[in-house]
Amino acid sequence: MTPKPLDYESLNENVKKVAYAVRGELYFRASELQKEGKKIIFTDVGNPHALGQKPLSFPRQVVALCQAPFLLDDPNVGLLFPADAIARARHYLSMTSGGLGAYSDSRGIPGVRKEVADFIERRDGYPSDPELIFLTDGASKGVMQMLNTIIRDEKDGILVPVPQYPLYSAAISLCGGSLVPYYLEEEANWGLDFYNIHQSVAAAHSKGITVRAMVIINPGNPTGQCLSEANIRELLKFCFQENLVLLADEVYQQNIYQDERPFVSARKILFDMGPPISKEVQLVSFHTVSKGYWGECGQRGGYFEMTNLPSQTVDEIYKVASVSLSPNVPGQIFLGLMVNPPKAGDISYLKLVQESKAVLESLRRRAHIMTDGFNSCRNVVCNFTEGAMYSFPQIRLPLKAIEAARKAGKAPDVFYCLKLLEATGIATVPGSGFGQKEGKTISMPSS
Amino acid sequence: MTPKPLDYESLNENVKKVAYAVRGELYFRASELQKEGKKIIFTDVGNPHALGQKPLSFPRQVVALCQAPFLLDDPNVGLLFPADAIARARHYLSMTSGGLGAYSDSRGIPGVRKEVADFIERRDGYPSDPELIFLTDGASKGVMQMLNTIIRDEKDGILVPVPQYPLYSAAISLCGGSLVPYYLEEEANWGLDFYNIHQSVAAAHSKGITVRAMVIINPGNPTGQCLSEANIRELLKFCFQENLVLLADEVYQQNIYQDERPFVSARKILFDMGPPISKEVQLVSFHTVSKGYWGECGQRGGYFEMTNLPSQTVDEIYKVASVSLSPNVPGQIFLGLMVNPPKAGDISYLKLVQESKAVLESLRRRAHIMTDGFNSCRNVVCNFTEGAMYSFPQIRLPLKAIEAARKAGKAPDVFYCLKLLEATGIATVPGSGFGQKEGKTISMPSS
Repeated sequence: MTPKPLDYESLNENVKKVAYAVRGELYFRASELQKEGKKIIFTDVGNPHALGQKPLSFPRQVVALCQAPFLLDDPNVGLLFPADAIARARHYLSMTSGGLGAYSDSRGIPGVRKEVADFIERRDGYPSDPELIFLTDGASKGVMQMLNTIIRDEKDGILVPVPQYPLYSAAISLCGGSLVPYYLEEEANWGLDFYNIHQSVAAAHSKGITVRAMVIINPGNPTGQCLSEANIRELLKFCFQENLVLLADEVYQQNIYQDERPFVSARKILFDMGPPISKEVQLVSFHTVSKGYWGECGQRGGYFEMTNLPSQTVDEIYKVASVSLSPNVPGQIFLGLMVNPPKAGDISYLKLVQESKAVLESLRRRAHIMTDGFNSCRNVVCNFTEGAMYSFPQIRLPLKAIEAARKAGKAPDVFYCLKLLEATGIATVPGSGFGQKEGKTISMPSS
Repeated sequence: MTPKPLDYESLNENVKKVAYAVRGELYFRASELQKEGKKIIFTDVGNPHALGQKPLSFPRQVVALCQAPFLLDDPNVGLLFPADAIARARHYLSMTSGGLGAYSDSRGIPGVRKEVADFIERRDGYPSDPELIFLTDGASKGVMQMLNTIIRDEKDGILVPVPQYPLYSAAISLCGGSLVPYYLEEEANWGLDFYNIHQSVAAAHSKGITVRAMVIINPGNPTGQCLSEANIRELLKFCFQENLVLLADEVYQQNIYQDERPFVSARKILFDMGPPISKEVQLVSFHTVSKGYWGECGQRGGYFEMTNLPSQTVDEIYKVASVSLSPNVPGQIFLGLMVNPPKAGDISYLKLVQESKAVLESLRRRAHIMTDGFNSCRNVVCNFTEGAMYSFPQIRLPLKAIEAARKAGKAPDVFYCLKLLEATGIATVPGSGFGQKEGKTISMPSS
């Protein structure tokens, strides 16, 4: 019998090739157990509100007012909302034509893109052009669009750090390209090893693959390291020499749990380096409202900023963004609020600072608790989680456990995580799901 | 010099091939004029709130409360919000784990998917399974995902009605497939001509293209017709014979401006037909909060429902949805509210009915004004807009105008629309942008 177009054997092979470990076997088993009534703590993705983190008040007040603009004319509105939230809601509504219910420009609301550009300029000390900033439904949509713009066929390779956030492998599969792994050095605090990176590129070349882009995740997901300025400088030099676009996933830029290596954007270092590199290296940077002390994952707000891209390419990216009409508008407003929060002296300033500090301090405390806890266990080692939201321990399993796993037809780390899930209700992601080398680890988010 | 990976000549060819007329030359020119201070009326996409339609109060109240859950404990909340909105906000918040700030399951919140299933069952008289309903960031994201699942390469063809909503041509280009046009018959009120459709399929076959899916847009975008039950029955038979998935874009199902042909879903007719067709034809139906009397375009809420898809395929679609983690949660709640509005006797029922009726009546009135207006002009004819939000007139241009267009290097309809824009500030979409046959028409939304 001829298979039907949506029978499994007829599907697009790129769809079938996608592996997405963070919502893989462990997640499904955890969901099953939850349905059966077991209490599950999902630590498979950074989803802070699902783990009890409270939203910041001010942005929620502003967006609530934007959703219900008729409240702005209600004489009682001041009983429920502070005056600066009311003013800010009017500010954003005035930027839209039709409020939250109207499509915005496909790149996002111009006024919010200007707020993002101002934020980037304050952060980096170099001006930013709102025309090169596109708002997106969360950072992952931007990453997917950019990979789809770059990848032409399976001969196009993308350098991705391993252990890696599986968004990248999944999106590269979907686009029909080739993932070229470069391994982070667990023994060197998940640092970069350029000898290794060169070897990865050489190995790809020998298979006929043209490496076209390099992904960095800084701070690291799922490994938690913060890249040093020297590392990023070397990276940019490498991208210049090898003619690679740098895709800088910087969504954890506010999640820093040590003082030695503060976050510095790839863009700032690019401009610090001066010509020719600052004029030549193509860079796309990603950010989101889902992480930081906001953790507004469900709102799906994000942006990407493009540096050194020709305008003809920017036009193409705009055209493709237009096919989905516009990113969700409430998410755009969250993004505006994140990059342009209340200032000292504003009514809501102190409360927002207190709430933000409490979240960040709690994340920092938990980063210590997690990694100290791991390192106090026998046969477990874990690098300190310098940033982001995850800890990635290495667990040495006894031979008998490995044997039992083999018998069950599972990778040892998957087997371990399943047992952990059943015993404790904690849903983790096995290290093999992040492409970690055989013979290593599981990951356990600290958030 | 070697081009860089994001230089125009290096981009993915599928990206370059995308044509997206509704945000094409006319839109850009209109945006320019707007920047220069001209008042522009954008009628290029159905974006009712941008044209002054007010949001319905109840859903906005509920979502505002969900955004600001701390209001639920405020003793003054009752001064600003009715009790049923408060209760409904609690209802949705209880379905989430972490409120609007947490990722939901990648298919959407289970409780909302259940509300959608109940709505479909009430509408069609046949039960619907929430496991086969996926929530999306607007309907277009669902359409794009489904096309990406079906299309393997340029030899896979998708039957698309022409004049067509350019989402389909754009998404098919992006996925690297082939659009197989079937022309709607302007002279027969934009009806289907099965002789024609058979010929389109035969022509595709002769080029080595396997037609794998058929798109219908009912009510029609941009043509405004409502398909008769007999037409849909014949379509389903055709899909059965030709082994095609039917992609039923039914986002305008609430936008009906005549009583002779009420909306009937493809799914209801499929089940009415009984086996073997009801058991065999694979059907995916799309719906949204962006249209109807809601018009909540900027919220990006939608769903698709799958019929007769094997579970292995559903799993693959789930896996790919997981890569973007989850659709935006506020949009999901709007969808829940749309399919499960207040009932007779609820506090907000009458107000919602009044508001909805006012919107629908205004749309119906404007459908008449638009098409009557067109038909009262010399050299203009236009089918009555039976549904959806658009009118698609045919304008006979004098030879001199065609001559002037040729001299300006423009298609005559593009030339006409540009002149119209400059003279009146009304931004339309030329018929050629919808793939209409040479020698026809421009389109002008009635919304």
